Amino acid sequence: MTSPETSADPPTGTGAADVYDTGLLAPVRAGSRAEATTGDRAFLQAMLDAEAALTRAQAALGHAPARAAEAVTAAARADRYDTRDLALRARRGGNPVIPLVADLTAAVPEDAAPYVHRGATSQDILDTAAMLVAARTLPPIVSGLHRAAAAFERLAAGHRATPMAGRTLSQHAVPTTFGLKAAGWRSLVLDAADRLAALRPPAQLGGAAGTLAAFEYLADAPGSGPALVRAYAAELGLAAPALPWHTLRTPVADLGTALAFATAALGKPAADLLLLTRTETGEAAEGSGGGSSAMPHKSNPVHATLIAAAARQAPALATTLLGSLVAEDERPAGAWHAEWQTLRELLRLAGGSAAHTAALAERLRVFPDRMLDNLHRTRGLIAAERLAAELSRAIGRTAARDLLDRATRTAAEERRDLTDVLAKAPALAGRVAPERLRALGDPATGTGCAPLLVDHALRRKPSAAPEDHP
Amino acid sequence: MTSPETSADPPTGTGAADVYDTGLLAPVRAGSRAEATTGDRAFLQAMLDAEAALTRAQAALGHAPARAAEAVTAAARADRYDTRDLALRARRGGNPVIPLVADLTAAVPEDAAPYVHRGATSQDILDTAAMLVAARTLPPIVSGLHRAAAAFERLAAGHRATPMAGRTLSQHAVPTTFGLKAAGWRSLVLDAADRLAALRPPAQLGGAAGTLAAFEYLADAPGSGPALVRAYAAELGLAAPALPWHTLRTPVADLGTALAFATAALGKPAADLLLLTRTETGEAAEGSGGGSSAMPHKSNPVHATLIAAAARQAPALATTLLGSLVAEDERPAGAWHAEWQTLRELLRLAGGSAAHTAALAERLRVFPDRMLDNLHRTRGLIAAERLAAELSRAIGRTAARDLLDRATRTAAEERRDLTDVLAKAPALAGRVAPERLRALGDPATGTGCAPLLVDHALRRKPSAAPEDHP
Amino acid sequence: MTSPETSADPPTGTGAADVYDTGLLAPVRAGSRAEATTGDRAFLQAMLDAEAALTRAQAALGHAPARAAEAVTAAARADRYDTRDLALRARRGGNPVIPLVADLTAAVPEDAAPYVHRGATSQDILDTAAMLVAARTLPPIVSGLHRAAAAFERLAAGHRATPMAGRTLSQHAVPTTFGLKAAGWRSLVLDAADRLAALRPPAQLGGAAGTLAAFEYLADAPGSGPALVRAYAAELGLAAPALPWHTLRTPVADLGTALAFATAALGKPAADLLLLTRTETGEAAEGSGGGSSAMPHKSNPVHATLIAAAARQAPALATTLLGSLVAEDERPAGAWHAEWQTLRELLRLAGGSAAHTAALAERLRVFPDRMLDNLHRTRGLIAAERLAAELSRAIGRTAARDLLDRATRTAAEERRDLTDVLAKAPALAGRVAPERLRALGDPATGTGCAPLLVDHALRRKPSAAPEDHP
Amino acid sequence: MTSPETSADPPTGTGAADVYDTGLLAPVRAGSRAEATTGDRAFLQAMLDAEAALTRAQAALGHAPARAAEAVTAAARADRYDTRDLALRARRGGNPVIPLVADLTAAVPEDAAPYVHRGATSQDILDTAAMLVAARTLPPIVSGLHRAAAAFERLAAGHRATPMAGRTLSQHAVPTTFGLKAAGWRSLVLDAADRLAALRPPAQLGGAAGTLAAFEYLADAPGSGPALVRAYAAELGLAAPALPWHTLRTPVADLGTALAFATAALGKPAADLLLLTRTETGEAAEGSGGGSSAMPHKSNPVHATLIAAAARQAPALATTLLGSLVAEDERPAGAWHAEWQTLRELLRLAGGSAAHTAALAERLRVFPDRMLDNLHRTRGLIAAERLAAELSRAIGRTAARDLLDRATRTAAEERRDLTDVLAKAPALAGRVAPERLRALGDPATGTGCAPLLVDHALRRKPSAAPEDHP
Repeated sequence: MTSPETSADPPTGTGAADVYDTGLLAPVRAGSRAEATTGDRAFLQAMLDAEAALTRAQAALGHAPARAAEAVTAAARADRYDTRDLALRARRGGNPVIPLVADLTAAVPEDAAPYVHRGATSQDILDTAAMLVAARTLPPIVSGLHRAAAAFERLAAGHRATPMAGRTLSQHAVPTTFGLKAAGWRSLVLDAADRLAALRPPAQLGGAAGTLAAFEYLADAPGSGPALVRAYAAELGLAAPALPWHTLRTPVADLGTALAFATAALGKPAADLLLLTRTETGEAAEGSGGGSSAMPHKSNPVHATLIAAAARQAPALATTLLGSLVAEDERPAGAWHAEWQTLRELLRLAGGSAAHTAALAERLRVFPDRMLDNLHRTRGLIAAERLAAELSRAIGRTAARDLLDRATRTAAEERRDLTDVLAKAPALAGRVAPERLRALGDPATGTGCAPLLVDHALRRKPSAAPEDHP
Repeated sequence: MTSPETSADPPTGTGAADVYDTGLLAPVRAGSRAEATTGDRAFLQAMLDAEAALTRAQAALGHAPARAAEAVTAAARADRYDTRDLALRARRGGNPVIPLVADLTAAVPEDAAPYVHRGATSQDILDTAAMLVAARTLPPIVSGLHRAAAAFERLAAGHRATPMAGRTLSQHAVPTTFGLKAAGWRSLVLDAADRLAALRPPAQLGGAAGTLAAFEYLADAPGSGPALVRAYAAELGLAAPALPWHTLRTPVADLGTALAFATAALGKPAADLLLLTRTETGEAAEGSGGGSSAMPHKSNPVHATLIAAAARQAPALATTLLGSLVAEDERPAGAWHAEWQTLRELLRLAGGSAAHTAALAERLRVFPDRMLDNLHRTRGLIAAERLAAELSRAIGRTAARDLLDRATRTAAEERRDLTDVLAKAPALAGRVAPERLRALGDPATGTGCAPLLVDHALRRKPSAAPEDHP
Repeated sequence: MTSPETSADPPTGTGAADVYDTGLLAPVRAGSRAEATTGDRAFLQAMLDAEAALTRAQAALGHAPARAAEAVTAAARADRYDTRDLALRARRGGNPVIPLVADLTAAVPEDAAPYVHRGATSQDILDTAAMLVAARTLPPIVSGLHRAAAAFERLAAGHRATPMAGRTLSQHAVPTTFGLKAAGWRSLVLDAADRLAALRPPAQLGGAAGTLAAFEYLADAPGSGPALVRAYAAELGLAAPALPWHTLRTPVADLGTALAFATAALGKPAADLLLLTRTETGEAAEGSGGGSSAMPHKSNPVHATLIAAAARQAPALATTLLGSLVAEDERPAGAWHAEWQTLRELLRLAGGSAAHTAALAERLRVFPDRMLDNLHRTRGLIAAERLAAELSRAIGRTAARDLLDRATRTAAEERRDLTDVLAKAPALAGRVAPERLRALGDPATGTGCAPLLVDHALRRKPSAAPEDHP
Repeated sequence: MTSPETSADPPTGTGAADVYDTGLLAPVRAGSRAEATTGDRAFLQAMLDAEAALTRAQAALGHAPARAAEAVTAAARADRYDTRDLALRARRGGNPVIPLVADLTAAVPEDAAPYVHRGATSQDILDTAAMLVAARTLPPIVSGLHRAAAAFERLAAGHRATPMAGRTLSQHAVPTTFGLKAAGWRSLVLDAADRLAALRPPAQLGGAAGTLAAFEYLADAPGSGPALVRAYAAELGLAAPALPWHTLRTPVADLGTALAFATAALGKPAADLLLLTRTETGEAAEGSGGGSSAMPHKSNPVHATLIAAAARQAPALATTLLGSLVAEDERPAGAWHAEWQTLRELLRLAGGSAAHTAALAERLRVFPDRMLDNLHRTRGLIAAERLAAELSRAIGRTAARDLLDRATRTAAEERRDLTDVLAKAPALAGRVAPERLRALGDPATGTGCAPLLVDHALRRKPSAAPEDHP
């Protein structure tokens, strides 16, 4: 079959395999389980699963012979078809289901042929396939998130009181604990997992314009449409929709926002770790840093880098899926087609990012000594807020502020610690004991509720993971 | 106070009011309730509400005198402050809370001054204000959606069996009913309302780096942090967060995706109506079309246009909020600041769009006669699928297809109806009665399960609306 | 080699080929030339081309033996390497250049090995490869655009005066000509081609941190860096950059915006054609419509649909590339990695969309009779503006408006043409001749400057097309 | 006038001023010149300027009395109209031009009234106004960019050889100079300025459907359309378009991408400075840091923060403008309306960001001592690449690598400098002099071509700035 483009735009001499995306430009998902469940072959298998489920559902209702259902099921094996050939033939009608139905029909015995794709429209099959692919990809994504959450939980518990600098707008602010930071990461990861685990991708079945008419008159079974939809969804292990959703794209938009949320949320621990691992900061390191082609001595935070890259890509992809909610008529000319690659890419980014976050979290090296060193970098200034409160009580607010201003300047100029300067301030003599000042000035003791907040946050349990989808 | 920009970049001669956005470029939300609850003054009031709630919560825990709480509450009235002046002074520190705290402190009696903003950080107040604004804006948005859903429900019920052309990829496909279309619109609108009604915007309170440390040591009340957070949230009628979320931006991202979902989903009925109202189609019209400056005779679908415009803007704004999940450290330098205008704009677009959809739905004029006329435009071709099934049963698949191909061509060439041609086909004589052919060929009878699906879909109930937030 | 993810996240049983993207979900670019020049193998070849050019450039400067340059060049053939294997190994260091350098080093004679990738950093090679791929893909994209422009030019010239309804906000407004519409499409297509043809993708060479230091001290040739950059760029036929642009991402952002512009701009003729081909309108049709799996009688506007789908995806992808302008340090941790798949996808969408637009334009069927029929649908109302002007001159503005209002109502109620009604209006008797009214009311004559504007627009010449890049 | 929404959705009790955006949530542009030229009043004035220019152009062609042109010009003063009132009345027809034309008509003497907006469509006026606003806002934006470029130039020249750590993927890589970094910032800023300075916003004039018909028949002057367009554009100081561009949105898309490019590009120096100013790094500081409501001692990089926030918002807004290229028919129902607020916001973000970048650059404090300290943090490891080259020459590649590995470990364990360890390595005795090792190991000497590249880059001259637009 010759498509219009082929004749008008002759292909170059490169063979088919030359044009493939094999993961070369996508290290974040290369080799991940989410990549395996979303490849073209996986989509092809899901389309075939949808076709077979349809014929079986029709057989179960007595609308097709059992033998036809068996024949279609037997023929519904992706390895019997050629994704590239289907891709090229898909151009003519604008979607791959049309050529696939031709091939599947040719692959079954003649008496089964009329029962292939009977009453269905391409979108029934492709949407169902996309939801099957999603249902098969959500478990590995959520599993990666849960692994990451468990690792962050261990870090949070183990470091609930490990002091480190709290940083705001790039500057040291007041002390916090590494446990609180890790507990925060965990809570974001659980938010992501919860949103994904709550999704229930539905099957799609409506026929040409979503009225189920053809299923009924081909089977001479008026009113049987809804039962067929339920049987079909049950065959596939997908949710049965209240209405055909050819142009009611909530399931795709929900997947889009949940996947983009997850991928972007994972960008938060990655961003923090990229800062903590900076050479000057050095408070953490990836367990197995990546090399460099130019500098063999370098140990790069590769996991965090790839996660950060995914977090930059996912939100824009969700835009496209949200935009496809504006789907006119009974099948839109473009909005639907714009979803396919976009949804796949989001599944891959989320899955790859979750796996990398799990690997990162499980092997993260944390350096409390360095955190403590850094806490002292501002020579006690990080405790200024707390000292101000104490001084106000002792000598009044205005005098306290003046004293602190002067002491801060002195500390900076003479490279001394702020509490040392204060300890020698005549104004405080007899009012605040030097030991008290030193205790207050010790950044390690000013972490407030951080440990308590960790305990509180760790009480939250992960949602149940979705089971692996057949 | 002079900000760096002011001196370096002298302002033009225009007065302050000249720079305002008063809605001139935003007809979709001008005059809407969502506009009123999201203006600068509304944000200012919400910031003041947050400040007052904080002092009251501290008073309730015995950390501040009751008189101070009363004084701050009394001073917390937006009309006492100047948003423009605050806006200009906000440049110096990068947020409007800093100058507002100065003004509020100056506005209370001297003995209350130390209890203003005590222990808090700017982000505590601004985040809480944003959540208050959201909590106050969600009810009018959901109310608009519920009104739209009710109107679509009436249309769906009233037209459950009104036949019209089902259209796919811009072409007539098979018949459907207007009721099914309206039921689909309703289901999308309810999806949007459900997502918004499920949101529980949380208060924000953490102090400088989210450890609650300052609240405790200023009150000399170790361990009291979590109780203060609960009391504060209760004062405001907002949810109490498990952790300070200065850099765990789930609440903002959730708002962003739910608002973008709603605004984009409303683009579906708008897109459909823009097609149904086209001059050539004419199956529906807005109850009160808008005029044109050039063509007084035109009646434009203004509601649908403005809704469609909002649907084009919202998804990209959600991108920015999802991107802000990547919020480094204990307060990010930029990701947080990027949320403010973006979230406000999304609230306004969703609120305006919901109000316009309600108005559109409540006054939509539907023209079933025109739908019937259009159904006949393809001279029976819209029933070809159904006729093919019947002919196959009568004369076999191959013969049926040949006959139909020929008849279709004849019908087109001779401008006759397909069933008329078939009724005279010798091959069918004695096999399929002309009346049967005419019945099958009547597009109005081929709507399949559409009415049943309407009944099914209308059983779904709207979620409870959020109550108006004080 | 085992990557961290592999051990932590065991792959499923699927073979490598199962995970490939072979175009199944991307009919817009399947089989296009832009697909062939952007596949993983094409990227691999471009990386190898960059490596070989580097060694040759070094040889030309006397910094490497000529034999080494020959050896590297000979080994730089993509078919000698395995993209999937490289993809998996790329995870460890976060980019595919690291394992490729290992393989390339192993593939050359031992004495050439030290001259492989000498002094370079991964980003030098990958960025250069991306620019080579872009330089090789721009010619087919621009060629598709020029073909489309030429076809639109023929349509515009041939239909410069063919009257059709001008439509605004979905309603008939006043007449225009199909030629003006086609001339507008052409001007947008030329805008797109001009923007792409003006791009000059630069080579990248800077070494580890963009200082060219390693190139110089490895060759013991201080100050030779800039000459090396020029020689390298010349070898590749790419522009020589003023500075290494590892984190100055203008070239990528420019590609992103120009490609997104092109892809979105093509969405304009597609959107128009999706409306013109609607069953009720029928003013145009694709030369070879696509079939439907459910409705064999349908002829779908498949080209326009796929072009529209691409137009919905491209702008969001440009967002990601614009966002990557925020590239910190001397190599960013994430912003760079986010570009790779995104840029490729944009090249593919633009190339596929251009090819489909060319095919669509070259075979578009236009139906002037139907345009004329539709012009008369509003029974002369489309000429109301013009009639109003004439009546005002004859009987004054107020009287004219009243008369026109009444006549419009009468025309609608009695299903008569507006000019017929006016021709019988007593108020006009003796003032405006019926023939004059009929002439003014003839929609076909009210196309104003449309033909002139066509002539004017067609004087614009396409920019020179970029030559095919070796 | 009562709009549909008003009656259906009663406004709350808040007064009009309550809903305004006065800049409270947008410190990046509050008080900037770009804010002043883009407020609602500025848009209103631009619409009035367009109306007046139209009547004057018609008068110049003899199509309107000179007195009418004078009258319209005299009435075209924004302070005579109420933007909020116009905003509310804009809802009915979907754009503010319709009520403005009514008000303007009422404001001129009766005999001038027929010449107000004569022949024009709303989009003529609103598009022209948007381009006027753009033309008036580009000069201050470019001026801010040029100021920033000049300041970066001074920094680059002054620090062309100031050594600092080059950092890749968050880690020290090899040395570079601060001058090279600043020269890179300048080149990006100039790229942004060039793109904006090259824009030539065109006037818009086409009448109802872009055919110029009404202008001609109202003036009884067939063929005069193009001359009118030229006269109108000349009156406004805008470019004359080749075609009316109601649905050929190149001018808006070009503005969108150039503004988003500029805003995002400015995010690069901001991102770098946010890293350089981190407490642990401390290599630079903003001249006047912003305070904190919680921590008076902190000096926040407020400029960089606000610039970074703008860089996060702009790309998504460009998405919307690129998406609006898909503008159907002769006036799109939504795509056009989606541009208004979006374009304004982009102008404001770019203008605010440019002003802040100028202020930041002009007062940036740079700390070369701290750069040098940081260069030594890795105890010579930053020179490993260079040392490896020297050792290879001296003792062969394999032995050199082994030695370097061991020495690196020893240096880390014993907290010694790498070159000290090497200087005592027996393998090097007599082969490489300790002084040579120390020279090579001195990070300050390994900056390669950085100074040369600075000189080269600074030769580039800024493009001519656009003149202030009247």
